[in-house]
Amino acid sequence: METAAVAASSAGRRIMVAVDEGEESLHALNWCLANVVSPAGGDTLVLVHARRPRPVYAAMDSAGYMMTSDVLASVERHANAVSAAAVDKAKRVCADHPHVKVETTVESGDPRDVICDAANKMAADLLVMGSHGYGFIQRAFLGSVSNHCAQNCKCPVLIVKRPKE
Amino acid sequence: METAAVAASSAGRRIMVAVDEGEESLHALNWCLANVVSPAGGDTLVLVHARRPRPVYAAMDSAGYMMTSDVLASVERHANAVSAAAVDKAKRVCADHPHVKVETTVESGDPRDVICDAANKMAADLLVMGSHGYGFIQRAFLGSVSNHCAQNCKCPVLIVKRPKE
Repeated sequence: METAAVAASSAGRRIMVAVDEGEESLHALNWCLANVVSPAGGDTLVLVHARRPRPVYAAMDSAGYMMTSDVLASVERHANAVSAAAVDKAKRVCADHPHVKVETTVESGDPRDVICDAANKMAADLLVMGSHGYGFIQRAFLGSVSNHCAQNCKCPVLIVKRPKE
Repeated sequence: METAAVAASSAGRRIMVAVDEGEESLHALNWCLANVVSPAGGDTLVLVHARRPRPVYAAMDSAGYMMTSDVLASVERHANAVSAAAVDKAKRVCADHPHVKVETTVESGDPRDVICDAANKMAADLLVMGSHGYGFIQRAFLGSVSNHCAQNCKCPVLIVKRPKE
């Protein structure tokens, strides 16, 4: 009876998973599917991806020459392709788990804001993310995305590290 | 078939929950019991508690008088009682979930080190904790315990906030 009560209380949750192009976010997604998502079904996974906004300095290359609009468009196309590939890869992982409903949400912006805002706006029951998304350089400038979310999201935050090989 | 595979992969985990005297750690424990622990049984919850070491300045009171050993012993007894009460309270919460095996581990020291060391030493599959354990003053001096653990524990870390009332 107790067991049934526990199972019932955890059904129908909205579990948000932050997805980027790194392997760590895929590992976090897999860990979540294996350890948190109810095998009995009923949970919804929301894949959230922050598409990077075109940086301000992109209009000038390192030698100080203005880039042509062709080059800028090509940079933008590349960024969009990277975003689409990351989300597609995560969706393919989820496809192996037909008992889970999957939604995706992609927004342009600082990943810290995009992820936190999305989690708060849709009142997620849990946010799952890797610990080192978005690369060393971005982290040095922006601070850790996972640390920011752990402090600022209203819901519980699960931070999954990629195991050392 | 897929569902069975998922359930099997998540059986028999060692889930560590950091316990202190605050309500937030109890909330984290309850959330974990309702949302992560397998209702089918097989998981082990390890309650870890960091007993605060006697601070260096305790031998002198605020007016600069040396405290007698009687007073020091009384301070120590009080700290031990607070620790025991925190662990007992958590154990009572777990007693309502007879399908979960419960172990406890109590160590003296900085909660950041105690919790991380315990999680790494016993190769926990998951560490669960509140986000604001150990009070504002200690946090200001020590930094956030949950932030430290999220960065330094090898296992996934789940940070559960106490909901605003």
